[in-house]
Amino acid sequence: MSITQAEIKQIRSLGEKKFREATGLFVVEGEKLVQEALDSGLKVVRVLRREEIGDAAMARISQLSSPSPVLAVVARPEPAADEPVGGLCLALDGIRDPGNMGTIIRIADWFGVETVYASGDCVELYNPKVIQASMGSIFRVRLVTADIPALARRFREAGMRVYGTFLDGKDLYREQLQPEGLVVMGNEANGIRPEVAAEVDARLTIPAFGKSGAESLNVAAATAVTLSEFRRR
Amino acid sequence: MSITQAEIKQIRSLGEKKFREATGLFVVEGEKLVQEALDSGLKVVRVLRREEIGDAAMARISQLSSPSPVLAVVARPEPAADEPVGGLCLALDGIRDPGNMGTIIRIADWFGVETVYASGDCVELYNPKVIQASMGSIFRVRLVTADIPALARRFREAGMRVYGTFLDGKDLYREQLQPEGLVVMGNEANGIRPEVAAEVDARLTIPAFGKSGAESLNVAAATAVTLSEFRRR
Repeated sequence: MSITQAEIKQIRSLGEKKFREATGLFVVEGEKLVQEALDSGLKVVRVLRREEIGDAAMARISQLSSPSPVLAVVARPEPAADEPVGGLCLALDGIRDPGNMGTIIRIADWFGVETVYASGDCVELYNPKVIQASMGSIFRVRLVTADIPALARRFREAGMRVYGTFLDGKDLYREQLQPEGLVVMGNEANGIRPEVAAEVDARLTIPAFGKSGAESLNVAAATAVTLSEFRRR
Repeated sequence: MSITQAEIKQIRSLGEKKFREATGLFVVEGEKLVQEALDSGLKVVRVLRREEIGDAAMARISQLSSPSPVLAVVARPEPAADEPVGGLCLALDGIRDPGNMGTIIRIADWFGVETVYASGDCVELYNPKVIQASMGSIFRVRLVTADIPALARRFREAGMRVYGTFLDGKDLYREQLQPEGLVVMGNEANGIRPEVAAEVDARLTIPAFGKSGAESLNVAAATAVTLSEFRRR
């Protein structure tokens, strides 16, 4: 198998959001992630191996500083409807950092949260840094772009609670947490937007311990603590 | 106030670990971090403001892509002895990623862990990315470079428990966790080293929920869940 200059150029272009959006394609790299892509049910358009295309071509198509031995071009799943589903779900309101986004998806996967909703201004879900930080969880969690205030309203109309984390909410450790519902996490700097906060019916806080001078927890750490608290028995 | 070319060059050099180690100095940027440095009791060697030195000089001494209006050169604290102290402490065995390190220091601060021990092969604690990710917690938590196996042995000799997180430990949610002791977190890829694991007397696991396919949690997320569990009432 060989690769043409035009193909190299096309795959390289998938490092940019506008080309990922125009084509509906994204890139994953590394044996483990490529295998997970193949096992995921997503359409894998192409798999390229270093021993087939050579080091130089691999270095050109790779988005990593140390190119992996294998890279796959994968088609994004069809967008899912932003409707409430059962079980415990997560909604992300304006998460901007790709490392946080990938880590949160990995945390959701660990704690058995099968659907993660993301507001339209979140970092793009198929950004290569999101994929790397998710450690394959991007292929196991259902990711849905959603209008979060409308979604939250529909969760409540369906009889489920909408939880959100705030700096001035009620002690997370003392609340009765339901096994179904929506947990909203907010932007790194500004937290949950007022129009989303208006749809939250249980405002939660992770209490700081002792004379802590820290003003907040990183959003991924806060997501981990919150989901742990929902899942612990 | 003005700044000479030689001074610009010297401050720029603090972007490199070898110059930080040779001089014992590090750089912090941004109004909030500089204020926290000034409040911390550490020796602040110099504070440089954009309005005093000009945009061009600020851009040259800054380590950020968008230079802050203010930058401080700070002297590291004197190294502390790696001895057990009371309360709940954290020990980091080979944390390599500066974002994880800074986030873990911020988490320790939130949960009232006053001393964090780091093995000699952890990422350098005064790396600019560690400082930024710590969000000022680097000035509030006592950071001690330590020989972790020897330290863990001395915690146990002092009658305190040494906890560690492993993929095959006991359910974190069901263990009796003591308010004093040492919690060890391991390297991002390899976990806790065997020579450290040999000194751990309570092996803990954060249980995954349901049919999760995730193989592990990010170490900062795992630290947050573990410390939350020690501190929840």
